[in-house]
Amino acid sequence: MPTKHIGKQTVKIQNPLSIISTASIVGPKEGEGPLSLYYDVVIEDEMWGEKSWEKAESKLMRETVSKIINKSGKTIEDINYILAGDLLNQCIATNFAVRESGISLYGLYGACSTMSESIGLGAMIIDGGFADNAVCVTSSHFCSAEKQFRYPLELGSQRPPTAQWTVTGSGGVMLSNQGIGPYITYVTTGKIVDFGIKDSNNMGAAMAPAAADTIVTHFKDTGLSPEDYDLIITGDLGSFGRDLCEEIVNKQGYDIKDKYTDCGVLVYNKEKQDTHSGGSGCGCSAVTLAGFIYQEMKKGKFNNVLFVGTGALLSSTSAQQGESIPGIAHGLTLQNKFG
Amino acid sequence: MPTKHIGKQTVKIQNPLSIISTASIVGPKEGEGPLSLYYDVVIEDEMWGEKSWEKAESKLMRETVSKIINKSGKTIEDINYILAGDLLNQCIATNFAVRESGISLYGLYGACSTMSESIGLGAMIIDGGFADNAVCVTSSHFCSAEKQFRYPLELGSQRPPTAQWTVTGSGGVMLSNQGIGPYITYVTTGKIVDFGIKDSNNMGAAMAPAAADTIVTHFKDTGLSPEDYDLIITGDLGSFGRDLCEEIVNKQGYDIKDKYTDCGVLVYNKEKQDTHSGGSGCGCSAVTLAGFIYQEMKKGKFNNVLFVGTGALLSSTSAQQGESIPGIAHGLTLQNKFG
Repeated sequence: MPTKHIGKQTVKIQNPLSIISTASIVGPKEGEGPLSLYYDVVIEDEMWGEKSWEKAESKLMRETVSKIINKSGKTIEDINYILAGDLLNQCIATNFAVRESGISLYGLYGACSTMSESIGLGAMIIDGGFADNAVCVTSSHFCSAEKQFRYPLELGSQRPPTAQWTVTGSGGVMLSNQGIGPYITYVTTGKIVDFGIKDSNNMGAAMAPAAADTIVTHFKDTGLSPEDYDLIITGDLGSFGRDLCEEIVNKQGYDIKDKYTDCGVLVYNKEKQDTHSGGSGCGCSAVTLAGFIYQEMKKGKFNNVLFVGTGALLSSTSAQQGESIPGIAHGLTLQNKFG
Repeated sequence: MPTKHIGKQTVKIQNPLSIISTASIVGPKEGEGPLSLYYDVVIEDEMWGEKSWEKAESKLMRETVSKIINKSGKTIEDINYILAGDLLNQCIATNFAVRESGISLYGLYGACSTMSESIGLGAMIIDGGFADNAVCVTSSHFCSAEKQFRYPLELGSQRPPTAQWTVTGSGGVMLSNQGIGPYITYVTTGKIVDFGIKDSNNMGAAMAPAAADTIVTHFKDTGLSPEDYDLIITGDLGSFGRDLCEEIVNKQGYDIKDKYTDCGVLVYNKEKQDTHSGGSGCGCSAVTLAGFIYQEMKKGKFNNVLFVGTGALLSSTSAQQGESIPGIAHGLTLQNKFG
């Protein structure tokens, strides 16, 4: 077992490692949701002055990175790495967003788990002494995602109750070895879990087993229990996936009921916003972490949070070729006190 | 500057960190190339018994991972992470290749720079004490790449002289904190460089400035010079890109002429194989590293190698929307003696 490993999938961060700034920019629909006041910027329309949805998504991330850096008090020279990815083919939102930054880039693909994937890797790089500061960021966009993964928006296809609504938004954080918390204290890296779900309008069910696997593994690896957390939150399972995840975790002997929710459940108003099972997309967990979770930790409402980004590893090609949807989930412990 | 940083983009690995095994599996065309004897397996046709090119690519990676593990003498339990990615939309070659492995996955997207990106991250994770062993792997496939990035193969589109041929193959390595070399000693992480090239049939020109930037930065950061290396090798610039890269590096005062080549130049026989400017794709640098470079280092022909994976960060969508092709390149120093 490597020195800093606690069990098979979890590492313990050895030195204080803080989130020193966050930023989030969201679309108009998200701006009408229950978490509205936590976002830095709500854009007025999905194009944001750009000529395509893809370019708008890229601008969301570019401006988010700029805000993260400005709010951190750091300069471009202080930042060693950007760790980032998105849902678009070949991660073009990311690549065009950070093109002019002049900062070393590690491009990631973890589908909607990218927010926690990037923080997990960034935490190890900083704690290992290879960086002082790293920006971890991701994005998604309802229109570019529907166009790429499902049907042209112009078709107005009917959505089943299990369908989720891709969040238009970019969120991210600055990690630093200086700072006063919230601290990243554990990283539980996910493995792929595939229960054979093939319905790309039921991503929550496809990802729930992976989320449950990571949550249970985290408890086993660390010896922590649901009582040690005041919030356990998955990335974008939506209401169907959330319930399924809770059920699987419960069957394995961990009662998370009172602590557990999902960013996809929180991000929209289920009654008023017609988003069916809730929010999804890389941006869903990213803007909720950068907004609601971070700010409520800063206020002391939450002191110990298990944040589990969840990704569905499909493409339209794999779906058309009859493949099921593999899921993955990466867990992070965020704590107001270090050690 | 963080403890282990040597200059802005380069880190020095502190403890002996070896490549303890490699594997490569290639397509029939690559099997007829000059590096034929270095590959573990040459498959007989591009489908390899699968029902689609994408599934064949995924099988290439799955079998390569299996060989890397077998040759390392390690068990699945010994491996802390797989770091992997590929060119297909949403990295499906990777996700379906490692689905059943049960090993924690960090999914990456660095286009054709993925081989060096994965080793760079893996090296920092291991040297930071977060892992003992990690598999770093990537793949590409001529047919799945042409279908996705350019034209249907059935069209038989004419290829300009600058066009490259995507390598069908998967290659990878096992990194370990135990072993007797070759050692990873420096990691120079690339930033995006974009000189405005828009021709997706001239990827070499699009990537050459990024490769040159990383090579020059590596020399400046480390104080090393071309004389310290007996091989400097880029990933997949092809012959046009190779010449352009050499010219840019030379203009900045570093004469790499006698040491420098490119995996895309080596992988096919230019006269006999009609591949125009040479090989490309994630698999190009991966199978050349796993085969030719690793084996010739083991024999002592090369003792100090600068390996620079090169990626073109485009998608067909960004190309259709008039965007240029951003490039990125990640550099690694491989040495037979540590420190």
